[in-house]
Order: sequence, then C-alpha cells, then structure tokens
Amino acid sequence: MSHFVNRRDSVVAEAIQGFLSISSSGDLARLDGFPDVKVVLRANWDRSKVAIISGGGSGHEPAHAGFVGRGALTAAVCGDIFASPTVHAVYSAILAVTGPAGCLLIVKNYAGDRLNFGLAAERARADGLRVEMVIVADDIALDDHASPRGIAGTLFVHKVAGYHAEAGATLEAVAAEAERVARAVKSLGVATAVCTIPGQPSHGRLNPGQAELGLGIHGEPGVERIELPPADEIASLMASRLARAAPAGPVALLVNNLGGTPDLEASVFCRSLLATPLGARATFVVGPARLMTALDMKGLSISVLPLDDALVTALRADCDARAWPGFHQIALPKVAPMPRIETRETASPSFEPQTRKTLVAVCNALLTHEAELNALDARVGDGDTGTTFAVAARTVLAAIDAMPLAEHDRLCEVVGRRLSEIMGGTSGVLLSIFATATGRSLGAGAAWPAALQEGVNQMRFYGGARAGDRTMLDALIPAVETLQRGAGLAAAARAARDGANRTADMKKAHAGRSSYLAESELKGVADPGAVAIATAIEAAAAA
Amino acid sequence: MSHFVNRRDSVVAEAIQGFLSISSSGDLARLDGFPDVKVVLRANWDRSKVAIISGGGSGHEPAHAGFVGRGALTAAVCGDIFASPTVHAVYSAILAVTGPAGCLLIVKNYAGDRLNFGLAAERARADGLRVEMVIVADDIALDDHASPRGIAGTLFVHKVAGYHAEAGATLEAVAAEAERVARAVKSLGVATAVCTIPGQPSHGRLNPGQAELGLGIHGEPGVERIELPPADEIASLMASRLARAAPAGPVALLVNNLGGTPDLEASVFCRSLLATPLGARATFVVGPARLMTALDMKGLSISVLPLDDALVTALRADCDARAWPGFHQIALPKVAPMPRIETRETASPSFEPQTRKTLVAVCNALLTHEAELNALDARVGDGDTGTTFAVAARTVLAAIDAMPLAEHDRLCEVVGRRLSEIMGGTSGVLLSIFATATGRSLGAGAAWPAALQEGVNQMRFYGGARAGDRTMLDALIPAVETLQRGAGLAAAARAARDGANRTADMKKAHAGRSSYLAESELKGVADPGAVAIATAIEAAAAA
Repeated sequence: MSHFVNRRDSVVAEAIQGFLSISSSGDLARLDGFPDVKVVLRANWDRSKVAIISGGGSGHEPAHAGFVGRGALTAAVCGDIFASPTVHAVYSAILAVTGPAGCLLIVKNYAGDRLNFGLAAERARADGLRVEMVIVADDIALDDHASPRGIAGTLFVHKVAGYHAEAGATLEAVAAEAERVARAVKSLGVATAVCTIPGQPSHGRLNPGQAELGLGIHGEPGVERIELPPADEIASLMASRLARAAPAGPVALLVNNLGGTPDLEASVFCRSLLATPLGARATFVVGPARLMTALDMKGLSISVLPLDDALVTALRADCDARAWPGFHQIALPKVAPMPRIETRETASPSFEPQTRKTLVAVCNALLTHEAELNALDARVGDGDTGTTFAVAARTVLAAIDAMPLAEHDRLCEVVGRRLSEIMGGTSGVLLSIFATATGRSLGAGAAWPAALQEGVNQMRFYGGARAGDRTMLDALIPAVETLQRGAGLAAAARAARDGANRTADMKKAHAGRSSYLAESELKGVADPGAVAIATAIEAAAAA
Repeated sequence: MSHFVNRRDSVVAEAIQGFLSISSSGDLARLDGFPDVKVVLRANWDRSKVAIISGGGSGHEPAHAGFVGRGALTAAVCGDIFASPTVHAVYSAILAVTGPAGCLLIVKNYAGDRLNFGLAAERARADGLRVEMVIVADDIALDDHASPRGIAGTLFVHKVAGYHAEAGATLEAVAAEAERVARAVKSLGVATAVCTIPGQPSHGRLNPGQAELGLGIHGEPGVERIELPPADEIASLMASRLARAAPAGPVALLVNNLGGTPDLEASVFCRSLLATPLGARATFVVGPARLMTALDMKGLSISVLPLDDALVTALRADCDARAWPGFHQIALPKVAPMPRIETRETASPSFEPQTRKTLVAVCNALLTHEAELNALDARVGDGDTGTTFAVAARTVLAAIDAMPLAEHDRLCEVVGRRLSEIMGGTSGVLLSIFATATGRSLGAGAAWPAALQEGVNQMRFYGGARAGDRTMLDALIPAVETLQRGAGLAAAARAARDGANRTADMKKAHAGRSSYLAESELKGVADPGAVAIATAIEAAAAA
C-alpha cells in the first residue's frame, strides 16, 4: 500500500494545516503548539458559553476537527494516528477555550483517552476551572462487556451538547443532556477489510467474501468473523441486535462509513436498513457519510438513538461543523411518472415508388456484399461489419411497406430508430444519429444535400471522429460534399468509393476501430464501414 | 473482497432508492422506469428554465445523483456500474425535464456516453425540443491525445451551468458558459490502488509503494507506473503538469478523492498542493471530497480552472445538490496563541517536619520493595511495577526540599504532576489523577479523609475500574473508607493490606492488567499495584 504522506511523524500536523487552509473560512484556528499540541478550535470563541471539547487519536477523520464549529465542538484535541493526545495537549485545549461557563469533555471509552483527558480535567479543576466529562460507550458488539468502546454514536453527543452550549445552557445542563444521549445511543459495526496505516505493513486478515461484525475504529479485530451475506441480511442482523438495545419508539439512525466503502454500497445498505423493523421506527437519519472513520477501513456502522422532541430540535439545529452531514427526515422516495414517449414508427405507412425502389436497392446491395465486407473487417476488426449491415438491411426490407415512404423526414426517423434497435455496436448508434438528424433537417424544410450534411455533422460531433480517421465518415463526407456542390447522386457515389478506397492508405487514428491496431496491420486495407457506405450510395445512384 | 450488495444487477437501482430515502428532503425524485430507466430528477421542477442533464455509468458516486438540485443538475441519468446509460434512459430524462427553454446535456468524453446521449439528443430534437450538448474532456494524462477523457473537472461544468440555468439564462447562454468551463478546466489523477467491482474478482496490479499517474475513473490503468514519492513531491509533479495546461492568473482547484483514500491523507496532499507554484495561484478550492469516484479506488485527482469574477460568482452561489462541498476561499491557517500554563511546581518550597518524614518513609518503603513488587508483577504483568514505583520514589526524594511541604493541597498537586511526568503507563496517570484531585479537595477546605475520597472517586471515574477488579483501588478504597469512618492511619494501613491480599483470590476483571490474562494464571497472585499501595500506606502509618 502506498500513502499520500511525507513523514510518518508529521502526518497529523500536516493534515491539520491542509484542513485549515481549505476549510477554515476564518472561523477555525489551531493552537500554536505544533508538533506536540495539535488542537483545532473556533477562532472567534469568546468563552462566554460552555465550551465543548472532544478528541482522541487521529485516523478517524473527519472526526474530530471536522466537528468543530458553532453548534458543535469548540475544540478538538488530536493525537497521533490511533494514539490518545497527551495530557498536556488536552490541558492546553481546556485552558484555551474555557471561561467562567466551564467546559464539557466528550470522551470515547478508551483507557488512554479517559486517563489523559481525565488528568487534564483534574489539573484544570485544580486551576479553578469548571470541567465536566461525559464518556461515550455506545458499542454493543460485546453484549456483556462492562466497558464498551466508544464509536460513531459519539457524533450524536457532540451535536446535542453543541446545541445546548450554543443556546446558552449551564454546564450542568449541557453535561446532563450529553450524558443522556451518551447513555441512550447504541452502535454496531461491520467491516469487509481492515485499515492500512501509513508507515506500517498491512495485513489483510479477511479473505474474499468474509466480514467482521462488531469492531472498533482502530483496526482491531471484530468480535465475529462471518461470511458476508447479502446487504439485506447483514442489515437485518445488525438492526435486530440494535433494536434489542433500544427501547420502543421512534429512533434516529446514524450510518457511518468507516472510510473505504464506496458510496454506492453505503446507499444499498441504507435501503436494506430502512426495510428492517428498526428502519421502520427511524424517522431521521445522519449519513451515510464518513464521520468516525478508521482510515481506509471498508465497513459501516449503525448507531441508534431513541428520539424525543427535544432531541429532534437539538439534532436538526443548524451547525457550522464542516463534517456534520445534517439530520435528515426519512421519506418514501418520490416517483415521477415516465414521460409518454411517442412512437413515430406507428406513423401511417405511405407509398412512393422511387423511394421504395432506392431503399430496396440499397438493402439488396448490402446483403449481396455481406461476405465481402465481413472478410475485409476480419483483417482490421472483429469480422462482422457485413453481417451487421445485412441484419439492418433485412429488417428494413421486412418492414418496408409499413414505412412512411412518401414522407422522407418521417422515413429517416423511422429508419434511424430501427437501426439503433437492430445494429449492434457503435455503428448502429452512429447511423441512427445520421438518419435521425437528416430526417429532422428535412422536416425543418432543408433540401436533401443540406439535410445529409446535418446528419454528417451530428455523426462527427457525437462520434468524435474526424475525416481521415478511417471511419464511415471518409466515404460519407466526400459524397455529401459532392451533393452539396450540386453534382448528382452518381458523382456522389464515385466520391464515396474514392473516399473508401483512400482509407486503405490512411494512418492509424485515435477514434474508431483502427485505433486499437498496429499501423502495419492496417496498411492497404480499406475501412469496411466506409466500403459499406460507398456500396450503399452506389446502389442508390443506380436505382 | 466483500461488498454490501444484494444482486449485482440491482445494485444501482437499490442505491438510488437508498439515496432518495435519506437525502431527498422532498425535492428529489426518480423516474418510474426501474429497472431500465434509472433517472434522478428534481421533484418540483417546473420546466420554465433550461434543464441541465448529466449522467453516465454508475460507480462514481456521489456523481451524478448527488449533484441534482437547485443551482446544479436538473436530472442525472445513471447507467449500470461503469456502463453508459441507454439511449432510452437518456431520452426519457430529456422528455421528463425539458420545457420550452430547452436542455443542456453535460457529457464526459467517453464513446458510449457521447453516442447514447447523442442519439437521445437527436431524437429529442426530432420531437421539436431544444437540446444542446457540452462534452467535457479535461484529463491531461496524455498530452497529445486528440480525445482526452472527461473526469472530475466536469463538476465545475455542472455547477456553472446550473447557476446560469437557475438565473434564467437562455439555452444558448447556458451552453456557452458550460462550454467555456469545459474547454478551460484541466485535470490529472494519481492512484495507489485500483478499484474492486461488486461481483468481479479484484486484481490489484499495484505493488506496495507503487502508484499510477494519469488515470481514468473506471479502473483502467494509468499512463505511468511510478514509485509513489512523498506527498510534497507527487503534488509538485502533478501541479507542474497542470500549470503548463492552465494560463497564468488565479485558479480554482478541485481535489477529488477517487473513493478509498483516507481523509487524513487527502488533507496532507492538499497542504502539499497549496505549497506549489500552482497552489500559490489558487484562490478557491473545492474539496478535498469524494465527488467523481471510481468505487473504492485509492487516489486523488486535481482539477484546475482559471478564474474570472463571473466564474467566482457562479461557483460560490448556493446550490442544493447534496454532494457539492462548497467553493471555499483559501486562507492561511489561523494560529491561536498557546494558553499560558502556570507551573505550580515553582511554588515556593516550605518545610513541615512530619510531612517530610512521612513522604520520605513512603518513598523508602517503595524503594525497599522494588524487587519484590517486580517479581509479583512478573507473574501477572510485565514485571516492572516495582521499578515504576521506585523511579517515582527516587524523583520525589530528589526534589523533596523544593516542595511546598507545609501546604498539603499544593504538595499533592506538585506530587501529582511529577508522577504523571515520571511514571510510565496508566498507573502514573491514575496516581496523578488521585493526587491532583486530593489536592484540589484539600484546597477547597476538605479534611484529609474526604479529600482522599475525592481522589479515589476521580481515579475510579477516569480509570473505569471498580472495586474487585484487581487494581490499586482494592487497597485504596478500604483504606480511605477506614479513614472516613474516623479510624486512624494504622487501621487504614491494615485495611489496605487486607484489601491487597484479597486481590489474590479475585476473578479476572474487565479493566486493568488482569483483563488480558487467563483466570488460571491469576489465581493466588495478589495485584502488585494494590500491594504497592498497601506498602506505601503502611510506611506512612509507621512514620
């Protein structure tokens, strides 16, 4: 594994500088204590309200610096990767933001964090500051563990505490609200791949198809190794365990991406989760988002918080923290009706003898030359150009008397639609674009030469090929130019054939089938698409 | 690799349902065309303004559905993973949102997308709708490629087009602005690991330490295989290539996380990028964020857009798209001064004979029992408890005559600070918490027994251990309870020793050193920390 780092020991300080350069908007700062003290705090904090401080090891980004802002954390104390910040760093943060209203420390239940935040709190109290601490232990991975880990449910505690502090509540009240949330929130995680730590060898302990259920946020093994079932089943399993830990009634869900799970899968998982009985009780959701990650760990965690009106108010309130993804009401997805698509193929058939004769002649010529075109394509492509055109020709012939032969604009549209339905690959779409654009131009009153030019133009624009790229255009472009000059169809057919022949000496191009072949394989071989076009125009001229 | 999916062929539809259930807030919907037509669109769109449509294969989340919203896309057409949506799906989207003002299609330069969006556009034009298309080809990986890929720079085009459409500009004007951005934006990507696709075997083609430079967003190989240099160097290399492709003057940067790169590393990379000459020209930035991902690919891309005032206005404007991370002004990180930390150790020394005698006795006892405590710890821990306490004892003895021996509150604080500086591991922090809280309580006027109780309380709270957990508390708690009852220090010492002895028969606990050992290894062995505490109190009682 490779990592975007400079030196292992400066990763966190550099990341904080990068974060602040881009995300600050002037309302965030860091303490001038690098490299020992890595604290991100509100820049214009006036200490008149209760300060909310959290933190812990780094590697959980956007936690914790991403949750600093009005209505959330006042300061985040960042340790090194997966290492608790020092007592000195926490103590510095407390002194930097704590005024007469006091401060609340929100600590995830890990021994290092409890002790380092704890000693810093005691020092600050000895200095006469008012300091309270709430410990979050939301992980239910081990049913009977006396001291569960603190994981992503901590985000709910940040938000609720930040709301009450911003509203001017006392330290006692803020701490009580935070404690209430910390006791109520329950979380459970699942991972499909462990994290890789910059500067350390990675050791993937999970085989393909496996997952770990009930894990922390530091790469430690989960409680159970399982074969990962479909998303519906794993969501159901996790939801039923969480439901047992949460009293009845409405809940908020928080879906945390542990870092490396694609958003596509996180959305699939959320759909599965909402379909569970627990999901049916959910009225609001946070995420799915990367909130409390474990570097690049692939996995997700669910946190559940029983709701009351006061909590909804606190969680919905605006906040300036960069990483708070909002508290969204869950709603049945809205479904808009499909637009009514008019099928022009059902246009009434009409008869016009010369048009029919020309169309039949073109189709027959393509059928006649099927083997020859295939043989040519076998030298520069996959050998099916003849068959592709022959299939289209047969389809048109079979439907010819149902077509609006007397209305050339509608006829082009109908043929265009058939071609895109019948011909495989890009040539079908390109010819469909050609026919559709030509028909549209005819319908707008253009004469045939100008309409065909419009068809060529759109084919060039959407296809991206230019003259000389060894494509159908090398026959079409000279033919249509000839018609535009007022010369007749016979002259156009000669121009198309000349153009097709010239492709044999053209160099390899960036677009089209020849772009995949070596120059030497192409030399002397005409492009089968261009030859097919010349064949068709010659047949039309002779009809 | 394991994936959170149900069935491979329903991944995208399920992800869209999950996304809409959670992120809609009522202003997003999907077309009723599942499973063939996967289109996310604005729910209350009134067709009075120019509609902006984009899309392409899925697997690039949050693109494209995440960019639907007021001021951004009107609709996103989602193909299967890394597969262009069908003509039918694009055509349905166009019909669903296009009114008299027309619509603009924003297409990344891939053959499938150009053709399918192109044919749909031609059909819609044939229906009389006004449709324009802008093709984005921002990748500079191949200097001389006639048809560069469209990658994350497309987000700038979405935002600018969405702004002008929302402002009521004509289709011609919106298309011209979008085209201007599409031509100006340049992008370059680097990856350290390829993506894994649900249902397909993964084939990591990159070895540890390697990276690919100049890559697309579909897992295709990059143009160059390199050994990944430090973040400063790779950012510098990429910035210099991009600077050559961007005219002089201020630029906006967009830093796109390709999916699996940790935010920590993305922030480090951004700091490196801003330190380059190109970074010095940057006044605004989008990200670092996951915007146009390739599932879980680890990597980052940089997009550069030369700025003028009109573009700044368009890019700064509010927009409702869920995944637009904002257009942030780059600022020097603010640095707040470190708080002045009062060093109470510099408190004037004072003399008090009995206190000095007691402290010396405690320290000497711990020194005397160093080997005995180490031997005990060797049976249940790492064998250093005796030495840990002895080091602390020596430090206190060496400094004893500089201590405020006559002021017991200050003395406790000074000792507490020394212990946390000198003693390793958790025991130093715990004893420091004990001493600091005791001193604070003494300072607040408490008598010694009550103050010691406060010390015990905080040690329990922060440490998380309970009575019976085989820790120092099992000697401390009975000793302090004895003092609280009014019995003297000799009785407390006996209680401490009894408590320490009882730890030999205690069961394995969840907290403390014994939690890592088997029950059988603990049986009959007293906890060395508890024994050390008993030893210290006995010495104090005898002094």
